[in-house]
Amino acid sequence: MIPRLEVDLAIPARGSRQRVRSIHRQLRQAIIDGRLKPGARLPSTRAFASEHGLARNTACAVYDLLLAEGYIVARAGSGVFVAGIAPKHARPTGRGAVRVDDHLRRQAERFCCLRLPAIAAPSRIDMRLGIPDQSLFPFDVWRRLVGQALRELARIPGSYADAGVDGRLREAIAAHVSFSRAIACDASEIVACNGAQQAFDLLARVLVRPGRTCVAVEDPGYLPLRRVFAGAGARVAPVPVDEEGIIVDRIPKEARLICVTPSHQFPLGVAMSARRRRALLEFAGRAGAVIVEDDYDSEFRHGARPLDALRTLDGGELVVYVGTFSKSMFPALRLGFLLCPAWLRPALAAARAISAWHGRPVEEAALTAFVSEGHLARHIRKMRRVYSERRTALLAALHTHAGGWLKPTACHAGLHVTALAAGERKLDRLVERAHARGIAIDRIGRCATLPLKADGLALGFGACPERRIEEAVLTLLACAGGRGDRPRRASPAACA
Amino acid sequence: MIPRLEVDLAIPARGSRQRVRSIHRQLRQAIIDGRLKPGARLPSTRAFASEHGLARNTACAVYDLLLAEGYIVARAGSGVFVAGIAPKHARPTGRGAVRVDDHLRRQAERFCCLRLPAIAAPSRIDMRLGIPDQSLFPFDVWRRLVGQALRELARIPGSYADAGVDGRLREAIAAHVSFSRAIACDASEIVACNGAQQAFDLLARVLVRPGRTCVAVEDPGYLPLRRVFAGAGARVAPVPVDEEGIIVDRIPKEARLICVTPSHQFPLGVAMSARRRRALLEFAGRAGAVIVEDDYDSEFRHGARPLDALRTLDGGELVVYVGTFSKSMFPALRLGFLLCPAWLRPALAAARAISAWHGRPVEEAALTAFVSEGHLARHIRKMRRVYSERRTALLAALHTHAGGWLKPTACHAGLHVTALAAGERKLDRLVERAHARGIAIDRIGRCATLPLKADGLALGFGACPERRIEEAVLTLLACAGGRGDRPRRASPAACA
Repeated sequence: MIPRLEVDLAIPARGSRQRVRSIHRQLRQAIIDGRLKPGARLPSTRAFASEHGLARNTACAVYDLLLAEGYIVARAGSGVFVAGIAPKHARPTGRGAVRVDDHLRRQAERFCCLRLPAIAAPSRIDMRLGIPDQSLFPFDVWRRLVGQALRELARIPGSYADAGVDGRLREAIAAHVSFSRAIACDASEIVACNGAQQAFDLLARVLVRPGRTCVAVEDPGYLPLRRVFAGAGARVAPVPVDEEGIIVDRIPKEARLICVTPSHQFPLGVAMSARRRRALLEFAGRAGAVIVEDDYDSEFRHGARPLDALRTLDGGELVVYVGTFSKSMFPALRLGFLLCPAWLRPALAAARAISAWHGRPVEEAALTAFVSEGHLARHIRKMRRVYSERRTALLAALHTHAGGWLKPTACHAGLHVTALAAGERKLDRLVERAHARGIAIDRIGRCATLPLKADGLALGFGACPERRIEEAVLTLLACAGGRGDRPRRASPAACA
Repeated sequence: MIPRLEVDLAIPARGSRQRVRSIHRQLRQAIIDGRLKPGARLPSTRAFASEHGLARNTACAVYDLLLAEGYIVARAGSGVFVAGIAPKHARPTGRGAVRVDDHLRRQAERFCCLRLPAIAAPSRIDMRLGIPDQSLFPFDVWRRLVGQALRELARIPGSYADAGVDGRLREAIAAHVSFSRAIACDASEIVACNGAQQAFDLLARVLVRPGRTCVAVEDPGYLPLRRVFAGAGARVAPVPVDEEGIIVDRIPKEARLICVTPSHQFPLGVAMSARRRRALLEFAGRAGAVIVEDDYDSEFRHGARPLDALRTLDGGELVVYVGTFSKSMFPALRLGFLLCPAWLRPALAAARAISAWHGRPVEEAALTAFVSEGHLARHIRKMRRVYSERRTALLAALHTHAGGWLKPTACHAGLHVTALAAGERKLDRLVERAHARGIAIDRIGRCATLPLKADGLALGFGACPERRIEEAVLTLLACAGGRGDRPRRASPAACA
């Protein structure tokens, strides 16, 4: 029996030069869009030819093209099939499905528990932690610079590039750091990478000895950081945090990496006190431990004079400074950098090379231009004003409407204010209800593994327009079930 | 003594509203472009005011702005300094430079030996391995799609996105794989990532147990692959390759990962024989080992009907298929993918998330459109013709001019032809001389750690226009010192 093709073919007039090409195109299309299913058997070239009134040669030419392209496969003796599933039947090891080695499977499963929670879609009012206001970013400028970079790329012969070694990019980043964080550094100290997370990952793979190295992290703290060190086999030691930042006395003596957010503790929002900074640097100095300073959003300072970065105080022997452009530009950019001691650079460069090898010349060139033409500095200055206003509005709204219940911690930087909740209200339920009413917000308890003195809310104002802030606070209050007490002494000035 | 500022300031007319802002801007600029060096001491506000005939308040306002921005820092008692170096003197641990813990230092040093060789700049005639012809890529289309993606991004509120989970992107990649490699797969089997190297990296971190897991790699083979597994602590076992591909009998019994390039061995160019494919799948089936099928450039097939991918033969239980868009589009893109068994997916997704967390929405959206609008298929079809012509020209030139000396291996795919060199010519010197004469080319010996039966040259034709090919071969011949013998039986047909 000769299988018939269940597709209608438009056969060009006899003698048309286009005949083979046209039939070939129609069949391929039928295969691509699934009208011809993988594994479906095709008629012999003879049958196909006679059925459509073609010369045998024409049919052969069409089949040859499809064979060459891999759309159809010929199995000796059994005919010609649409490529794909057919070979499955001819599985080499006859007996059923093969089983993967258990130790491989266990290795793999070890990783599943490191899975990060899925990221929620943006909601009507987005008060999640660390979301900048993308709507004010000069995308027109960025589009132009990316287009420029692509045009230049089109002009040069295709090639690969080493990762993060572009001198101009590192110059630009160094300039940006000295502008936005008053850190004097040299381009040679910069290692560019794909967002802060890759920076943590590179440090983990370079510095962690699986099963041995102890890494101290802030608790409450940043989950993805903890995960990447755990994934590298580190012993992760959570260290409690108070209003002065990480409690240095509680850092295990054997800790060889200490990861902190001194400018704007994640998620509590407090800045590490000068006293703690000194204590931390002394601890690290004694132990020869490396401090990872995650400065994720302190380009945005509100009023108060910023404390010097640990990197600045240390002078750059033990402190690795990690920065990102996700907040100062936009999250989808995926560019960040490390500012690291000389002894670490070659290892980090090697790690970066084997983990992703090549840089991203287009985005990196565009970023270089964006910084060196002053667009980034301009945007940061603009956003400092915008965010400061939103922060003031948020603190005022909290004071007026929830003064007795939500106590903002003292914070002078970044894109969120943390407010500790007095009393026993169920914050989980509040967060749920808020989500239901279109307000996305994070509970600081979600960032903690150790018991918290007081739970609270991290209120991101980065993506929340000023006019929406009061509404948001009132909605939260309603979700908490109750109007909240009358304002008390907690004047917003205390946090401004 | 009052230090004077060594910068000229243009002071706006008294009473101008712009006064503070203008002076502030000028000073900041002086600091940014280094006219005011970090650590330089500024005059007191009083001195500054009197020197420039300003009201004291104006001077204070200017200083306050610079302080708030972190350009200058005030040290109690000692005055105001340009930010940056000053704090170094005030290093907490008084005694000289602190020393990092030795075990951290050793850990880091371990990585330096994994450093990859620097990538050479493109030369006049680029015959290196695996460089595609970027000049024929439709960058205009790509620019438009990237611009579109950026426009859409500008419309949505800022947010982060989970990595590689975009359904449309995976649909598109699945369609691409079935088109370009006749592999029937489902979008759910795809994990998108940043180039093939990240794919290897994810597999290494998910499957390798440091110090335990044995990973078999082809030798000669792809260095960056070997490095990333070594970096993850695997015991890397080089396995020799012959004209049928990896010699399965030489794979260590304890190997739990086996990395191969069956379609176009890197760098020998041969395709793994059907016999070896069966043997390899049987080995893996018995051991429960995972096969990593690196299909780096076989979208470009030349004439012969391609052998089925191992992934197709296996049916997707033990084989992980790794693909990249670096060859079919352009290297700077940094996008690739894994096609993997269901049991591996959650672990790989988790690993991808903690290693770089977020995807690259812009490039991924552009790629999705590029594939689904048919641009990629069109480009690949076009380049198949172009590359086939170049390959034919190269084989012909080798046959005519170097027939007796350079014997091309049988290869039917990809962007390079490998030619084994008869006799004892010094290929290192040849490669050097060729570089000096503007021809970049790779010696296969550089990819080997085991002794080679015969050394030779990997002649990339991807980035070498047809008209240049004969010239290149003649130059190589000259570099080898000698015209080469008259052509022999080795007809190019044998390799066509």
